[in-house]
Amino acid sequence: MTSKFNNVYVADRYTIAGVYEKDGPISDYFDLIYDKDFYYGCDTFERAEEKMLSNCILKLINRAKLIDSDIDYVISGDLENQIAASDYAMRDFNIPFLGIFSACATFGEGLLIGANMIEGKRANKIIVSTSSHNMVAERQFRNPTEYGAPKKKTTTWTSTGAVSLLLSNKKSKIKICSATPGIVQDKGITDVNNMGGVMAIAAADTIKKHFDDLKIKPDYYDLILTGDLGIYGKEILIEYLKDMDIDISKNYEDCGLILYDRKRQPVYAGASGPASSALVLCAYILKEMERGKYKRVLIVPTGAIFSPTRSFQKDSIPSIAHAIGLEVSE
Amino acid sequence: MTSKFNNVYVADRYTIAGVYEKDGPISDYFDLIYDKDFYYGCDTFERAEEKMLSNCILKLINRAKLIDSDIDYVISGDLENQIAASDYAMRDFNIPFLGIFSACATFGEGLLIGANMIEGKRANKIIVSTSSHNMVAERQFRNPTEYGAPKKKTTTWTSTGAVSLLLSNKKSKIKICSATPGIVQDKGITDVNNMGGVMAIAAADTIKKHFDDLKIKPDYYDLILTGDLGIYGKEILIEYLKDMDIDISKNYEDCGLILYDRKRQPVYAGASGPASSALVLCAYILKEMERGKYKRVLIVPTGAIFSPTRSFQKDSIPSIAHAIGLEVSE
Repeated sequence: MTSKFNNVYVADRYTIAGVYEKDGPISDYFDLIYDKDFYYGCDTFERAEEKMLSNCILKLINRAKLIDSDIDYVISGDLENQIAASDYAMRDFNIPFLGIFSACATFGEGLLIGANMIEGKRANKIIVSTSSHNMVAERQFRNPTEYGAPKKKTTTWTSTGAVSLLLSNKKSKIKICSATPGIVQDKGITDVNNMGGVMAIAAADTIKKHFDDLKIKPDYYDLILTGDLGIYGKEILIEYLKDMDIDISKNYEDCGLILYDRKRQPVYAGASGPASSALVLCAYILKEMERGKYKRVLIVPTGAIFSPTRSFQKDSIPSIAHAIGLEVSE
Repeated sequence: MTSKFNNVYVADRYTIAGVYEKDGPISDYFDLIYDKDFYYGCDTFERAEEKMLSNCILKLINRAKLIDSDIDYVISGDLENQIAASDYAMRDFNIPFLGIFSACATFGEGLLIGANMIEGKRANKIIVSTSSHNMVAERQFRNPTEYGAPKKKTTTWTSTGAVSLLLSNKKSKIKICSATPGIVQDKGITDVNNMGGVMAIAAADTIKKHFDDLKIKPDYYDLILTGDLGIYGKEILIEYLKDMDIDISKNYEDCGLILYDRKRQPVYAGASGPASSALVLCAYILKEMERGKYKRVLIVPTGAIFSPTRSFQKDSIPSIAHAIGLEVSE
C-alpha cells in the first residue's frame, strides 16, 4: 500500500562523509568531510560513528536555526548491533527518539514513518537520520580489516558517513510525494558476500508495487535510484523487472555506483551501508533537484536484514526495500 | 510531546509464553504456552524465537478473521542483533514491515508509531509485535547458560514469549488514549547487571513529561506499570519521582514483578526482555480492564538501549522509556 503525501517537505539536510567518500565522484557535495582517519579523535571506531552522527544532527539543527524542543522526533537507525550509533548519539539531544532498523534501507523506513506522521498532522518537524562506518561494519559483519581477508568481487564496500534530513509541513523546494513500504523477501540465497543479489528481489517487489499502486510507469520519474545493489545487483534488478514487463533501464542508477568510482577505488561491486543511499540522496540528488536537473526522483533504499548468527546457522538472507517518491514543488 | 488519540483501539491480541512464564502467577492468561523446552521443535534457539513470533502474528490474524492484505503494517522489533527474530519471522507474511528497536521498550515504541499512524488516518489496521527468548538473550548479552556464570541479585531474567496486538480505528472495548515518546537518558552507570537502576531515570523522565503534558496526576490512572525495572529499579523510580513531587507509590507496579513469582522462581530481580511488559499488558492487564478491574492504565515499557561492544569499551549505558495511556472505552 503506497502512501501519498501533500504536505511533507524537505526543510534541510546535513551530510558528513569519510576518507573514501572524499575520493569519490560526489565529494564536492558533502557538507563536512572527516578525512584524516577513521577515528575523528575518538579512541574506538564505534565512538567515532557516534560522534559523526551526533555532530550531523547538531549541525542540521543549528543550520535550520532551531532548538531541540522545536523537533518532535528524531527517527534514526544504523548497522551497529542494537543500532548503537543512534542510541548513543541521542544522549546529546533533548528530543524524543524512535529507533528503527531496516539495515541499509533504514533511511527509507525513517522517511516513510516521518512523512506519514507529518501528513497525518501528528508532528510538524521530524529529523530522519542514519550512519554507517566502514571499520565498525567490517568487524561486526565480516572480519576485522587487520585480518586482511580476501573479498569476492560481489562484495560491497560499507560507506562511512552520517546523514540527517529535516522533514517539515512548511513548503520548501523539495516535496516528499509518496512512500511504498517493503515486504520481507527471501530467495534462499546464503552468500553473505553477494548482498546485491540478495536485495535485488526486494527492490523489484517494492518498485513494482509502487508503479502498480500509483498507476504510473518508470518514465514518470526522471531518475530511479536503488540503495546499494552494486554493479551485479543492479543488473539482476533490471532483469527481474523486465520479467514483470517493467523496463527501468533508461533512467535507473544505483547509489552504490554513484558514491564511489569503481575504476579508481577498491570498493569491489560498489558502496553499501545505510549512509550510502542517504549520502547520495541528501548531498547530491536533492542539490541537483534544486538546480533543476531532476524534477521527479524515486529512491529505493535496499537492506539485507540478515543476522550473522543466523548465517552461521546456515539460514538464508532476508531483504527489504522501501520506495520514496520526491518531487520539485511548484 | 505527548500525543493524544481519539480513534485508536485494541481490536485483538495474541500471547505466547514459555516454560518459566507458565510457572508464574499469570500463567492462565496466555493464549498459548510452549512448555516442553526452549526449542519448540527447531534446531536453534534463534529459530525457536522466530517460530514463536511468526506463529503469534499468524494466530492473531486468523483469530481476527483477517488476511495479510487487510493489515497495513506489522511494526515489530526484538532483542536479537539486527532484530533478527522479527526480520526472519516476517518472511512468512505478505505485509509491509517496519522494524524498530528500543530494547525492552520496543513494544511501547511500536504502539506509539502505530497509534499515530491510525489517528492520522494513515492506516486502518496495524499489528504491533515483539518477542524475547531467554536463551537467545543470555548468550548474546550475558554468557551462554552452559557456562554457569554466577549472577548478581540485581540481574533480571529475560522472559520468553511473543506478543502481537492489532490496532484499529474501529471502536472496541479498549482505547489507546495517549503516548509519550522517550528521550534517551544516561546517568553514567556501567553495571550491565543492574538494568533496573539504569532504566529508572528514563521511566521517571517519561512519566513526569506525561503527567505535565496532560496536566494530570498519578491518581488519574487506576494502575501505573513500568516495563521491567525489577524490584530494585522499582524502588529507585519511586524515589526519583518523589524528588520531582510525584507520588506513584499507591497505584504503581512493575511488569517484571507480575510475570514471575520471585519467591518461587529463580529470576533474581524480576522479569525483563521486550516480551515481559508486552505479555503482562496483553495477556493480563487488558483482560482485567475488559472485566472492569481497571478503567485507566498507564504502561511505560523501559529499555536499556546499550551495546555489549560499547560496554566492553567501558562506556556507560543509555536507556529510554515510552508511556502509553489506555482506557476502557464508554
